[in-house]
Amino acid sequence: MNVEEFMKKHGIEVGDYVRLVKLEDGEKIEYEGLVMPPYELSEGDTLVIKLDNGYNIGIAVDKITSIEVVEKAKAKPEVHFKAELEPKPGLPSVTILGTGGTIASRIDYETGAVYPAFTAEELAKAVPEIFEIANVRPRLLFNIFSEDMKPSHWIKIAHEVAKELNSGAYGVIVAHGTDTMGYTSAALSFMLRDLAKPVILVGAQRSSDRPSSDAAMNLICSVRMATSEVAEVMVVMHGETGDTYCLAHRGTKVRKMHTSRRDAFRSINDIPIAKIWGDGRIEFLRDDYRKRGEGEVWVDDKLEEKVALVKIYPGTAPEIIDFLVDRGYRGIVIEGTGLGHTPNDMIPSIRRAVEEGVAVCMTSQCLYGRVNMNVYATGRKLLKAGVIPCEDMLPETAYVKLMWVLGHTQDLNEVRKMMLTNYAGEITPYTKPNTYLI
Amino acid sequence: MNVEEFMKKHGIEVGDYVRLVKLEDGEKIEYEGLVMPPYELSEGDTLVIKLDNGYNIGIAVDKITSIEVVEKAKAKPEVHFKAELEPKPGLPSVTILGTGGTIASRIDYETGAVYPAFTAEELAKAVPEIFEIANVRPRLLFNIFSEDMKPSHWIKIAHEVAKELNSGAYGVIVAHGTDTMGYTSAALSFMLRDLAKPVILVGAQRSSDRPSSDAAMNLICSVRMATSEVAEVMVVMHGETGDTYCLAHRGTKVRKMHTSRRDAFRSINDIPIAKIWGDGRIEFLRDDYRKRGEGEVWVDDKLEEKVALVKIYPGTAPEIIDFLVDRGYRGIVIEGTGLGHTPNDMIPSIRRAVEEGVAVCMTSQCLYGRVNMNVYATGRKLLKAGVIPCEDMLPETAYVKLMWVLGHTQDLNEVRKMMLTNYAGEITPYTKPNTYLI
Repeated sequence: MNVEEFMKKHGIEVGDYVRLVKLEDGEKIEYEGLVMPPYELSEGDTLVIKLDNGYNIGIAVDKITSIEVVEKAKAKPEVHFKAELEPKPGLPSVTILGTGGTIASRIDYETGAVYPAFTAEELAKAVPEIFEIANVRPRLLFNIFSEDMKPSHWIKIAHEVAKELNSGAYGVIVAHGTDTMGYTSAALSFMLRDLAKPVILVGAQRSSDRPSSDAAMNLICSVRMATSEVAEVMVVMHGETGDTYCLAHRGTKVRKMHTSRRDAFRSINDIPIAKIWGDGRIEFLRDDYRKRGEGEVWVDDKLEEKVALVKIYPGTAPEIIDFLVDRGYRGIVIEGTGLGHTPNDMIPSIRRAVEEGVAVCMTSQCLYGRVNMNVYATGRKLLKAGVIPCEDMLPETAYVKLMWVLGHTQDLNEVRKMMLTNYAGEITPYTKPNTYLI
Repeated sequence: MNVEEFMKKHGIEVGDYVRLVKLEDGEKIEYEGLVMPPYELSEGDTLVIKLDNGYNIGIAVDKITSIEVVEKAKAKPEVHFKAELEPKPGLPSVTILGTGGTIASRIDYETGAVYPAFTAEELAKAVPEIFEIANVRPRLLFNIFSEDMKPSHWIKIAHEVAKELNSGAYGVIVAHGTDTMGYTSAALSFMLRDLAKPVILVGAQRSSDRPSSDAAMNLICSVRMATSEVAEVMVVMHGETGDTYCLAHRGTKVRKMHTSRRDAFRSINDIPIAKIWGDGRIEFLRDDYRKRGEGEVWVDDKLEEKVALVKIYPGTAPEIIDFLVDRGYRGIVIEGTGLGHTPNDMIPSIRRAVEEGVAVCMTSQCLYGRVNMNVYATGRKLLKAGVIPCEDMLPETAYVKLMWVLGHTQDLNEVRKMMLTNYAGEITPYTKPNTYLI
């Protein structure tokens, strides 16, 4: 039986609060929660309910032995938005570009309502506060899981962002799934040149630890940041698990560090640009950001897609490097151990890669800290083999950057120069205190 | 000119405090520091000096335009160790097995002395405190960089540890390079069965932020922990940047999170077992550890080496999975995005891998948190394709464990069962509070 038939049979509607019993391995488990809509993400045979602790769980309907409605869904009040969505004089214009992910399609977690289409009306219903800050205009670019985001999507997003900024938007927000948001923010950081306005990536962590989702506050903070004076690509997400503040992270220094927490996104080796408090106040944590200015942004979208990111571990086979070279890869970012090492038996394959014109770059799987390949003999041998040490760049950022650099030149001397040039804050010249594990 | 000739020419000896001028790109830079020995890690043309801030730098001798001795090396007092190294009655016996790395070969950073041979005399000279805690017997197994550690080394170490424990040692310490210490600690955790005594891995971070190295305190704390009641494989390293305490981390939950800080090693998704304070006091942070007992440890050393760890990123080519299958790999650990995802276009290659009997396991590149592949459709499709979700296991630990599991069975149902069985604390049943980014 599929979930629609199951719900019909039991008289269950989306938004009902239900109590059910699930039978698994002979054991009966009781659950209570709000019935979530059988949106396109579910398989057809799974009922999704939101538990009181805020987590959603999916239960195969053929394992449900009983179900009853504890409380029917509240009827939704009719809301007339036309007037509210008239642009308010004096407010800046902010465009929200939807690309998929939790935040774009399902804002209103509390009532279980789903908004796959992502219209201004739906946004206004779910998060009316943002229309007090700016004249918000949402537009859906596409609707994909962020794990399916490809470099071609980055290019599409970059051009749409530029189009909006160059036709009057005061700032642009990209609503994005969280899985690969850090990669996309790095890509936009390199591709959007002469940026003179804020570009914000925002998402929502699915498993919130409270009944309310983090989507609303993240969105409010992102609109606030999109109207700020910071002309950079940033990620705006919760700064801690409660609803006190969000953080605006530089797009090249940010990483998803937790599978499910609301405060999963963290600046690595750098401090965030700002805190955005629940009341909308922006507290700047630094002042060395790029300031809002005049002039049009342009998109430098040349990317070489034949680039790989390879993590090193004891027993890594050097043939993995050989395979990539044989398959025509033009760049390899190594996520090495410690200060930037590989096993010594891998160095011949790396040397051969460089000799065949493949750019090989070194980052560290420690994530925090900085590669330093002058300390130990292994590092020095790798340097002699032609490996480019990527300072304190995140492996993910170095991967995106190498694609972008190789889109411009495949001369290894030029590649080295560009990899070590700081285009978008991806390299910090020295490590600031208090940037480790916070 | 090589460094020996250079030192001879300028009358410089190891341990001298020198002032020198280096010419680089037309710019003159002055350095002061202690001349370190030209040990085997240096290339022949590099003078290594320890700066006052504790960092070592290497300077090519042909770039040094002037050098003068500020203070000659102090003559070393003659020390007679014979008596001290007689076993003291009443003290437990602890064996230190050297495998290479900073801690094994160069204990005495302050005077610039180098101890590649790693004898009891040298240990006693450098860290006399440990001989007050135990009758310490050091033995050098081999001397390699930890980035060159292979599964065959893990097996060798495991057998030597077992031999020591079964012939009277009260605890064993493995001195190890820090790059891959977390991998080795995981391997020992799985291979040492019926462990009834402590096994400690200890190292030293090369770039300390103070003139003194972290080696001495790490070693003292590791001897203290080796005489404790905890019968587990642990990593003992600095808990913060100062010299106040070390942490004892469970061997399967620990990771090097910083390239150079003394407190680089961190428990992920779990709290450490204990703090070891500078005065030797052990403060337990939990009591659910394996207790010291009777009986012999045995080594379950069956490992399947055809296993790979593959990190996922936007644009990962599915052909990387195909390549591994074609090359006869029996297991693949995926470091997926978010809750445990790959791009959807990779699923056919993963399905084919499983159909050909390859065990495919999922972990998260977030590192913190837990994979949950029931939340989104992509995760569920991966589960249907046969992927084994590895709970909150570290990618590195899952990689080591899969080698060990495949050494025992290649039946995928059995592999799944074993991967989801908690053998050495590698899976926490639920995530404890305060285990994120600390």
